[in-house]
Amino acid sequence: MARFESIQALLQQDRKGHTLPRELYVGEDAFQFDTQVMLKSVWLYACTAAHVKNAGDFFVFEVGHNAIIIVRGRDNEIRAFWNSCRHRGAKICVEQRGRVPRLMCPYHQWTYGLDGKLLAARSMAEDFDKQDHGLNPVALENVGGLIFICMDDNPPSIERVKADIEDQIAIYDIERLKVVVQDNYIEDANWKLVMENNRECYHCDAGHPELISVLGTYGFGKGLPEDGEADVVDDAAFDAMVEAKRAQWKDLGIFRELIEFPDGWWHRMARLPLANGAVTQSIDGKLACKKLIGPFTEPESSSLSVWTQPNSWHHLCCDHVVTFSLTPVAADKTLLRTSWLVHEDAVEGVDYDPDHIAALWRTTNTQDGHFSMLNHQGISSDGYQQGPYAVEEKLVEDFKDFYVDASLKSLQRVQA
Amino acid sequence: MARFESIQALLQQDRKGHTLPRELYVGEDAFQFDTQVMLKSVWLYACTAAHVKNAGDFFVFEVGHNAIIIVRGRDNEIRAFWNSCRHRGAKICVEQRGRVPRLMCPYHQWTYGLDGKLLAARSMAEDFDKQDHGLNPVALENVGGLIFICMDDNPPSIERVKADIEDQIAIYDIERLKVVVQDNYIEDANWKLVMENNRECYHCDAGHPELISVLGTYGFGKGLPEDGEADVVDDAAFDAMVEAKRAQWKDLGIFRELIEFPDGWWHRMARLPLANGAVTQSIDGKLACKKLIGPFTEPESSSLSVWTQPNSWHHLCCDHVVTFSLTPVAADKTLLRTSWLVHEDAVEGVDYDPDHIAALWRTTNTQDGHFSMLNHQGISSDGYQQGPYAVEEKLVEDFKDFYVDASLKSLQRVQA
Amino acid sequence: MARFESIQALLQQDRKGHTLPRELYVGEDAFQFDTQVMLKSVWLYACTAAHVKNAGDFFVFEVGHNAIIIVRGRDNEIRAFWNSCRHRGAKICVEQRGRVPRLMCPYHQWTYGLDGKLLAARSMAEDFDKQDHGLNPVALENVGGLIFICMDDNPPSIERVKADIEDQIAIYDIERLKVVVQDNYIEDANWKLVMENNRECYHCDAGHPELISVLGTYGFGKGLPEDGEADVVDDAAFDAMVEAKRAQWKDLGIFRELIEFPDGWWHRMARLPLANGAVTQSIDGKLACKKLIGPFTEPESSSLSVWTQPNSWHHLCCDHVVTFSLTPVAADKTLLRTSWLVHEDAVEGVDYDPDHIAALWRTTNTQDGHFSMLNHQGISSDGYQQGPYAVEEKLVEDFKDFYVDASLKSLQRVQA
Repeated sequence: MARFESIQALLQQDRKGHTLPRELYVGEDAFQFDTQVMLKSVWLYACTAAHVKNAGDFFVFEVGHNAIIIVRGRDNEIRAFWNSCRHRGAKICVEQRGRVPRLMCPYHQWTYGLDGKLLAARSMAEDFDKQDHGLNPVALENVGGLIFICMDDNPPSIERVKADIEDQIAIYDIERLKVVVQDNYIEDANWKLVMENNRECYHCDAGHPELISVLGTYGFGKGLPEDGEADVVDDAAFDAMVEAKRAQWKDLGIFRELIEFPDGWWHRMARLPLANGAVTQSIDGKLACKKLIGPFTEPESSSLSVWTQPNSWHHLCCDHVVTFSLTPVAADKTLLRTSWLVHEDAVEGVDYDPDHIAALWRTTNTQDGHFSMLNHQGISSDGYQQGPYAVEEKLVEDFKDFYVDASLKSLQRVQA
Repeated sequence: MARFESIQALLQQDRKGHTLPRELYVGEDAFQFDTQVMLKSVWLYACTAAHVKNAGDFFVFEVGHNAIIIVRGRDNEIRAFWNSCRHRGAKICVEQRGRVPRLMCPYHQWTYGLDGKLLAARSMAEDFDKQDHGLNPVALENVGGLIFICMDDNPPSIERVKADIEDQIAIYDIERLKVVVQDNYIEDANWKLVMENNRECYHCDAGHPELISVLGTYGFGKGLPEDGEADVVDDAAFDAMVEAKRAQWKDLGIFRELIEFPDGWWHRMARLPLANGAVTQSIDGKLACKKLIGPFTEPESSSLSVWTQPNSWHHLCCDHVVTFSLTPVAADKTLLRTSWLVHEDAVEGVDYDPDHIAALWRTTNTQDGHFSMLNHQGISSDGYQQGPYAVEEKLVEDFKDFYVDASLKSLQRVQA
Repeated sequence: MARFESIQALLQQDRKGHTLPRELYVGEDAFQFDTQVMLKSVWLYACTAAHVKNAGDFFVFEVGHNAIIIVRGRDNEIRAFWNSCRHRGAKICVEQRGRVPRLMCPYHQWTYGLDGKLLAARSMAEDFDKQDHGLNPVALENVGGLIFICMDDNPPSIERVKADIEDQIAIYDIERLKVVVQDNYIEDANWKLVMENNRECYHCDAGHPELISVLGTYGFGKGLPEDGEADVVDDAAFDAMVEAKRAQWKDLGIFRELIEFPDGWWHRMARLPLANGAVTQSIDGKLACKKLIGPFTEPESSSLSVWTQPNSWHHLCCDHVVTFSLTPVAADKTLLRTSWLVHEDAVEGVDYDPDHIAALWRTTNTQDGHFSMLNHQGISSDGYQQGPYAVEEKLVEDFKDFYVDASLKSLQRVQA
């Protein structure tokens, strides 16, 4: 791909332990490369199984210029299709979410089953064969209720991810949850800067007072004791408390040692204690939903946190789950979609208050949107120079290394 | 033109009976090609003679980055000029329509006659010659009151079009009409998709209930009996009625057999019956103006309909005329300008109500804008695949074939 | 720089005495060239010393994608730095103006002294050296209180400019003024068209009735007697008055013969009389501030006017100073920033009224914004042709010649 030669050259300017060259963050070519090549070569988190809870429920996942329908069939199977009619290409699902008996194109009413098969098309030539005109499928994997898609016709393996994280996630029984709040927030920054922002808490002390009062900064870049960075954790008493909690978690069957991008894979999972007596990730640390989920019958002051490269992170608490997906919209615009899920039987106004459940991360997202915008704007200037990551920014570096590596690989594939 | 090599390659991927490759619809390069090359090589419909009814009346016609003044001179001649002062290039006509004694640049008051000659320019060097600095002309042809322009210095012939359609149009005496409503509607779709939308009524049953109650779908893609597609017309009684009407039309001198892009030309004309007792193309089928036009003294339940490639269509009824011109604004933005004309002596509030006259097509345009937007959005996705036109979409195919052919020819010319 | 070959070809199409080729005014490539190459090779006026009056005062100057902090140190020195943190590149100064004790990045609190040295950065690796991570400096020169910056690492000489104009400007003691109004006005035109608009008063008679009632058109393109264009000045009586005034000005020590881009330099300076009894450049010709500035104890009916290529002009009156800086925002968007300064001891509501002081040029700027927009729009059309400048547009030609010359030189440098 001659047109991405300049991107390849920039990728090769990557400096270990330093930020990327300017153009990779802010350039239009890099945006085209990311959306046309790199992000099409990897698995992307789209939504949970609870977003498409019943047969006919659909969820449209958009990545740059691409749009994919995720839909649950009558056979309870969740499938993904390109959101483009096989007749003249119109969008089939117009709303971002909804429920339909069949997938019908609003333009000329070509009608597809929930399994993508073309059922009806009027006035076609005699040699027209419906079997050749079903919706084009997209690869989809369900990892314990987290739905990943890959736009490549030969998607890479996802097996190790499943093997490592599926059973712990499964504890939360996502199929029996429901989405009660979904925020779509457009940040004025390149998606990689929004990701970098998520991967460290070096900015939390000054930037997120609400968040750290509930989560502490433990595990958010300062590292867990077992990851070899204990030197930067300054609270020995807290460490001891965590040790005690780990014993409890083991008893409950909700503990696994830190998994951190093993063997070059793209997943990280940790159980993290909460701070200051919080029992969940809410603005005041109090339960966000009275009806607990999964195996929990008592509040449990920790979260199972999952981070995947290159576009998501998730926190599973005893009373709710919050998931984040991030997709590029333009070189300097990124959609951060945050979803909050509670027990399917929980009643609004009785068991939970949507504003209360969303308040902590909504506040944090807004703060992060501001930082990412300033980051993007500052990098846009010729005065920008690739800078050194702090020790607390190891996960930022992990993201950047993944990005460079996956990008070079994707270029090799399209060049081959 | 090396820069349009990729466009040439895409044009050569054209599949008979199928939609165009994605980039030709949604790509920025294709937009540049269309506005810089293709659309400059053909005749474009701009307005009617009634839009510039009196000496000094001007109408600014914009196509992409280009703007052309159409102005009637004191000699009653209608001429076209580039809307750019020969001094420092400023826009001369700032409003879209108006009436002026002379064409004066608002920046430094260089003043031109209505025939484009430079009349006055202050403070110029001694060797400055006003005769060398008249407004640059643009080719213009008046076809029975429909004004076409061509931005090429050597415009293609328009004679066959004139010979075929001018006298039937002339029946409506457009010079004696006046424009009473003009809608400028920006659709969020590529101009070619807006054209394709116009060229079929396959979407009308579900998409345009108001329109088909007045027009039926007869002649809008389902074909007229004589065009060899009678098989798709399902109403034999209606056909018989049309046969009867044709005899009447012949008596009135208002009938000509269907003209349909003869010998590769770019015009189509048909007299079409109206449905459900409608006497004109109005929202309720009732007269839109009490004062009839042309030779009509009694309501006549039909329209003379004219379609020209690549940017217009027109319906001439017994009481009013409605014309449509379509011009690209951006790769995904198209200006649809609809004008409604009535007899020059008709009185607003007495003979016609502007909202009533515009209601039918205003409603239809809005519905079509929605479909074209969904079409554009769906094609933008990598999941789009060139799809097959339905039998009822023959005129869409005619448009597409014209576009591909005219594009390849225009490329050959610029390359020569 | 292969990517700017087309720009080089266009620059070589420059016609003596005529406007530039279309693409240089309206093309995206030309905008990229201007902001990435040409404007980085020259000195640009940014602000006055009074904009950063006290230690810690900063002023952010933005040129296209670039942003520069101008800040006064505790040692009273004014310095310039790129507005991008050496850590991860975020913007350091978020507001356009303000006062700070230190320059602290809001993202991770890296903290720099007002002299750009890195003072604090948490959690860095052991081999991290703060001395290597100070803010990147930008060249800055203070010419009698007018601050110029140059983004090139090897800025061209500014000495001749200083030698020619610094002492006359110094009379106004800009350090003892304060900024009382600052207008940021985005014009919908390329920056070069906004500059061309500024360099002639050929459009003033019709376009700026308020301005010429105060300034006359004397010296604004009609030329001063000594510049060899007396032939176009039509008011002999006015000339005689000016002669008389020059004698007065000499006595006051506030006169220097016209300096007009000597030996290819980029500065012009003239003392200009005011018209119709005006004593300052205000909407009614009356004092804009009761407290006079510099050496003036009585109103003096003239201004010291300074024009610099390629982005500024200034008028220094007996009671206030008004300065203009102009920077490109997009190919068709330009920021015109106008600042009005009065004596530091003047009291709002007592000595001056901000609306009164700004009214004349605010009105004029708005009128010029309209003309520049029409100029840009007209040039965008293919009908545009390079046009001849009028005799009164000699300074426009001077600007254009400077632009072409500096552009070709800057291309040679980047190609070397």
